[in-house]
Amino acid sequence: MNNFAFYNPTKIVFGRGTVSELGGLVEPYGKRVLLVYGGGSIKRNGLYDQVLRQLKGIGAEVYELPGVEPNPRLTSVHRGIELCREHDVQFILGVGGGSVIDAAKAIAAGVPYEGDVWDFYARKARVEKALPLGAVLTLAATGTEMNGNTVITNWEINQKRGMGSIHVYPKFSILDPELTFTVPADQTANGIVDMMSHVFEQYFSLTTDTPLQERLCESILKTVIENGELAIREPDNYAARANLMLCGTYALNGGMISVGVQQDWASHEIEHAISAVYDIAHGAGLSIVFPNWMKYVYRSRIDRFVQYAVRVWDIDPAGKSDEEIALAGIQATRDYFTRIGAPATLGEAGIGREKLDVMAEDAVRFGPLGSFRKLEKDDVKAILEMAL
Amino acid sequence: MNNFAFYNPTKIVFGRGTVSELGGLVEPYGKRVLLVYGGGSIKRNGLYDQVLRQLKGIGAEVYELPGVEPNPRLTSVHRGIELCREHDVQFILGVGGGSVIDAAKAIAAGVPYEGDVWDFYARKARVEKALPLGAVLTLAATGTEMNGNTVITNWEINQKRGMGSIHVYPKFSILDPELTFTVPADQTANGIVDMMSHVFEQYFSLTTDTPLQERLCESILKTVIENGELAIREPDNYAARANLMLCGTYALNGGMISVGVQQDWASHEIEHAISAVYDIAHGAGLSIVFPNWMKYVYRSRIDRFVQYAVRVWDIDPAGKSDEEIALAGIQATRDYFTRIGAPATLGEAGIGREKLDVMAEDAVRFGPLGSFRKLEKDDVKAILEMAL
Repeated sequence: MNNFAFYNPTKIVFGRGTVSELGGLVEPYGKRVLLVYGGGSIKRNGLYDQVLRQLKGIGAEVYELPGVEPNPRLTSVHRGIELCREHDVQFILGVGGGSVIDAAKAIAAGVPYEGDVWDFYARKARVEKALPLGAVLTLAATGTEMNGNTVITNWEINQKRGMGSIHVYPKFSILDPELTFTVPADQTANGIVDMMSHVFEQYFSLTTDTPLQERLCESILKTVIENGELAIREPDNYAARANLMLCGTYALNGGMISVGVQQDWASHEIEHAISAVYDIAHGAGLSIVFPNWMKYVYRSRIDRFVQYAVRVWDIDPAGKSDEEIALAGIQATRDYFTRIGAPATLGEAGIGREKLDVMAEDAVRFGPLGSFRKLEKDDVKAILEMAL
Repeated sequence: MNNFAFYNPTKIVFGRGTVSELGGLVEPYGKRVLLVYGGGSIKRNGLYDQVLRQLKGIGAEVYELPGVEPNPRLTSVHRGIELCREHDVQFILGVGGGSVIDAAKAIAAGVPYEGDVWDFYARKARVEKALPLGAVLTLAATGTEMNGNTVITNWEINQKRGMGSIHVYPKFSILDPELTFTVPADQTANGIVDMMSHVFEQYFSLTTDTPLQERLCESILKTVIENGELAIREPDNYAARANLMLCGTYALNGGMISVGVQQDWASHEIEHAISAVYDIAHGAGLSIVFPNWMKYVYRSRIDRFVQYAVRVWDIDPAGKSDEEIALAGIQATRDYFTRIGAPATLGEAGIGREKLDVMAEDAVRFGPLGSFRKLEKDDVKAILEMAL
């Protein structure tokens, strides 16, 4: 186990009907609120009205940034920053999935910063302060509701980049599993792949002597696997939706499950390079990339892949070589993704070999990827070839 | 799963040599510091000097409260509160195990309160504010380093009581596993029993649909079991000490492993009633009580005890009734406690049947105990009889 620091100041308010606590949660931060949301589903399902009632109930002045995209765009973030500055906004509330909350974080960091907010994503500057923000989550997937990460896409230069800062942890996040009942099967599946991938990035590590962290990862994976298919089959099964939502949050809440563990994140970088060019859903991209990454790297530490196969997928090790056990676990991962309807190849997402080189180049822009096995451009290209 | 709120603002700084970060962690809170510690082991092992160097390094004025007892006493807390008021102390630093940190929390809450600090423990008042506090942990056990709980003993009236408040979460806790290398085998064992007991209180629950929480509990238990014996056999095995320390913290960090789960805590109340009369170590008391509590209550939800036996103790269920599996798990618990040297009976702690009635009466002073099975005075007495 490596030395570490862990600090996560986000308050989680979880369960049926908890949107009714929103007003009281926002009130300490001020009356001028920017409401950030996406494509309008919150207007159709009544959540928008509920949120506005809560905000009006505390006498808030509400400014709105609607239309944040599934891969949130820098242009939307710029609009939000302008709105905040124009109206001297004191608090930012994101109501939606990971994209909306990531955009809210970018806006929060951008408002008090003199330069362009993209500087944070381009690694030219570090966030020193931010407006306070909160979230009402409507999709179980990214974990952004309880961490300081945000990913934004800059279409002018076809780059999708992430950054993290303690200053953009939400002050609170409301997680009501009922708000996810209407999430369609394909988005539910993408969310499942996303949260499993977050665990993979922390689980497949070369760090030794981390038995608790490994088991915490395995606990989330097994729970997601059981509840994921159930939630797709029965979209309004409260227990399944609640278990998924909790797993999504715990999978990436500032690294609680992987304290002292060197993480990888190569697959995420590769996916970002894909969706910066093709604008596919993040979960879909991860579904295509991750099992191929596994096949490419598993020999770096085959015992971890054996443990994964046995503990997470209940692969019976009797009479099998380590190689066979490891590969059976990887295959089980792919089969599960397929079973929940997530794509297996770039081809399924309409992506051919034309831009493999561009994507591989972009992925390693800041240097080789990952730590489980360091990946150079040629490695990334090989993984993308496997994914065709 | 029940609705819940979760918020844990403690920063953890973990690993070898992290006491070197102490000065920087204290500095934001002020220069007048009360240093709280126990029986002097920190003077023998050099930690005291190291801490003072850190505090002098930021120009702090240090006032001292030495001699806090293993079951910390209200009289020590009163002395600490007086010192703080007299010197206008701005920050309280506890350096030691759970008792020292619990005392530091009591002092922190007591300083700005006009009445007697015992009011909080007697449930006559709630903490509204507190001085900021931090901790350097020297014993893996209670989890107090990352929660808002504190337990104090009032010897005038023979009562040991706990209370919890968000205002007494440490601002930071430094966890250096090397500081626990010198903890003797019996105290290491008590710490192991304590952390396992904390998990039991959250794991044996009637709440349904909590698969992630159950697995998180099982993850900690299995890791403690593996590393506990190793740490006793090899006191300076860094990995074993580090894994135990992390388990102790995660076992009770504000309920992270049991969000949305109704907890029990009857066994802790029973142990408090015992040690309020006999001043035995908390972990020793829990070792005596818990397996007996298990035997008394397991029929309330036998499937959870079956799961415990199979998943935590690898009991082979083939050919056994649920009853047999559950009892095998309970026996495995007792055997493990015995293997690490923790006591099994009140007799081993020199306690006879003279005061069973007084203790049972005291345990239910605020009403029946627990939730897995509600325990009246007669139930508590029956469990104590089983423990003789």
